Order: sequence, then structure tokens, then C-alpha cells
Amino acid sequence: MNGQPKVPVPTLARLATYYSLLREAEEAGVETLNSARIEGLSGIAATQIRKDLSRFGELGKPGVGYNVSELREHIGKILKLDRVQHVVIIGAGRLGQALAAYPGLADYSFEVVGLFDSDAKKIGKTLSGHLVRDVATLSKSLPGLGARIVAIAVPASSAQGAADAAFAGGARWLLNFSPTHIKSPADCLVRDVSFTQEFAVLAHYSEDK
Amino acid sequence: MNGQPKVPVPTLARLATYYSLLREAEEAGVETLNSARIEGLSGIAATQIRKDLSRFGELGKPGVGYNVSELREHIGKILKLDRVQHVVIIGAGRLGQALAAYPGLADYSFEVVGLFDSDAKKIGKTLSGHLVRDVATLSKSLPGLGARIVAIAVPASSAQGAADAAFAGGARWLLNFSPTHIKSPADCLVRDVSFTQEFAVLAHYSEDK
Repeated sequence: MNGQPKVPVPTLARLATYYSLLREAEEAGVETLNSARIEGLSGIAATQIRKDLSRFGELGKPGVGYNVSELREHIGKILKLDRVQHVVIIGAGRLGQALAAYPGLADYSFEVVGLFDSDAKKIGKTLSGHLVRDVATLSKSLPGLGARIVAIAVPASSAQGAADAAFAGGARWLLNFSPTHIKSPADCLVRDVSFTQEFAVLAHYSEDK
Repeated sequence: MNGQPKVPVPTLARLATYYSLLREAEEAGVETLNSARIEGLSGIAATQIRKDLSRFGELGKPGVGYNVSELREHIGKILKLDRVQHVVIIGAGRLGQALAAYPGLADYSFEVVGLFDSDAKKIGKTLSGHLVRDVATLSKSLPGLGARIVAIAVPASSAQGAADAAFAGGARWLLNFSPTHIKSPADCLVRDVSFTQEFAVLAHYSEDK
């Protein structure tokens, strides 16, 4: 990273969790939530919640809690979910298609503006509502698409090449769904989403009884 | 959770990251890694790495570091990746199919033993190499499948129903890929994998310049 980020990634991940809960609460007509209730919904300790939110000046009201709409809006601004964020997806396989059609993204103002693949059978077709473009054109077309975030959903063996093409096109924020490590320039951030690691965390708890 | 888990979930998530890195290093023929090098590969602070590993008696050798194979094996035992773990996937849409075919799972000894859906057009077909079964039969067939972990990959509106069927069949460890909160019995653990939240974390860093 070029300089230290103001908010650490684990804090941002928790803020995103709060945002999601607040959004559901708001839709259900809930007006206030206290930290104990947010702990019950999120599994995050109430002390941690209060610490995270006081960092941004949100202290809640003693005996009442946080105003759901205000807090959701406040966190949305911190996470920059108050504006449309363009996203490009590399890989039009099952996972890339699932991402391109993932309903949660539009709910959070993420807009998929490009879907790329290297497979000649897929290029030019419309999958999950998006025209599949040739990944060989990615670095040239990326600036014009205005995408801030690029998701990598290709096989592990193609992941570094796809990422390098994205970096060459000016991408700095990558979400890597491929089960491999991606090397990145110093001013770029690659966040790994590993399904295997998520399964591994649960495996620890599964007793053979 | 029924009683406090011995190892906190965030620690397990980091252990899974170390395991993944050690596996790649082992395949590349690397024999030792020190905490500074693991920090460079994982983005986790060296002090945190040493703290996590010393918890399990792994202290490494000063000036040499950790033996890659030994440490990988040790963490594998803690995460119970040293045995086959049966997994059932509910939802045979794009995401469920992507999970069922995800190459990383088999690499970590996870074996998909069942793929369920409610869509009559999918039931009975073979998708991603798995026969799609009727989710209405899930709670009855789950015990026979020996699945310790159930992944929920259905639309948000069907997620609670799918989870309840899994709980009724004896499932206690759920990985929830649906963009909604799932209510669970006290002795069960639901781990949310939210693509939207992963995007939201990156959105914070994307400056509009």
C-alpha cells in the first residue's frame, strides 16, 4: 500500500457486517439497535462494536442505542457505498457468472461494467446479462470502463496473468477468488476470498463423534 | 455455540491462510520460512504470526524460521485437514455449481457428497459432476451422507428454509453464501461468506481521483 490506510482492513470488514445488518433492520422497520443486539446478530463482541463505532464519532444514546438509518448512512459513507462503484470481472466461468449475477452487488451500488474471458467460445456471448469480452483487450479497455475494483475469477494457473493485465490497465484494487497468491505492485491491494479457507475454519469445529 | 470454542474463529482464519501459503511453499520446494517472510506473503504482521504459532507450541528456530512441511502438517491437524471432510451443497445454481467444481476443495480433502436444489428442471441431472437431488429429501438423507459441513448457495429468500432443513438433518456447521442472515440453533455455527462485504472493504480504498 502507498502509505498506511486510515482504517485497517479488519475494521472495514466489521463495518461491512454492521452495514449489512443495519440494512436488513432498516427494511424490517427497526428504528434503533444497541450494541448487545448487534452482537447477537453478528457474533461480534459488543465492546468491539462500540470501539469500532466510537472511532467514527458514533456513540449511540445510553439506554436507547444507535439510530439504524443514521448509522447505516454513516457507515455507507465510510465504505463509500453512497456512490456507484464500477466493477470488472475477469473469468466468465461458473464463478464469474455467479458474481456477475449476484443480486447483493446491485443492492450495494456495485455495478458490473465488464466481464472478460480468454475462451473464444465465450467471447462475444452474453452470459449473466453481460457481453463477454476478450481478456486480451482488458488493459486497453479498463480505463474507459471506469472500474475501480476488479474481481479475478479464473483458474489458479491464469490468475497472475489476469491480475497483471488488470494492473497494466490501471486497476489498483483486486478481489481474488482464485485459489492462489497474486503478486502485486506496492501501491495495489489484493484481497483474497478463499472458499477453501472458509471451509477449513468450519472443519476445525466438526468433531468426529 | 455449545461452550466456548478452543480456538477463536479469527485465529482459525489466519491458520488457514498460513496453511495455504505453506502448501504453496512446499510445492515450490521451499524448506523453511520465517515470520517476516510469511508476513510478506500473507499481509499478516510477523508478531501476530509468531503469537498464533507459539499458541500451538510452534516456536521455529531463531535465525532459521519454521520448517515448512512440519508446520503445514501441524496446522493441518489443528484445522482437521488431515482427514476427508464430507460437504453437502444446497443450491445448484451458478454459485453452487462453482463450489461443487471448485478445485481448491479437493486439494484440502473436502469431498462434495451431495448437491441439492428445489428446481424440478435440475433435480436428477448431473451438474459439475454431481447428481442434483431434491432439497425436500435433504433432512432425511443428510445423516447417511456423513456430511459435517453444509454450504448454502440459494437465493436469500430460500436461505432460512434450506438452513432449517439442514439443521433438521443434523447439520451443525453451515457456510452461508446467501446475502442474508440465517438464524441458527444455539449449538450450531453459521459462517457467512459475503461477496458484497468483500467488495465493500475494497470500495473504501478506491479514491475518486
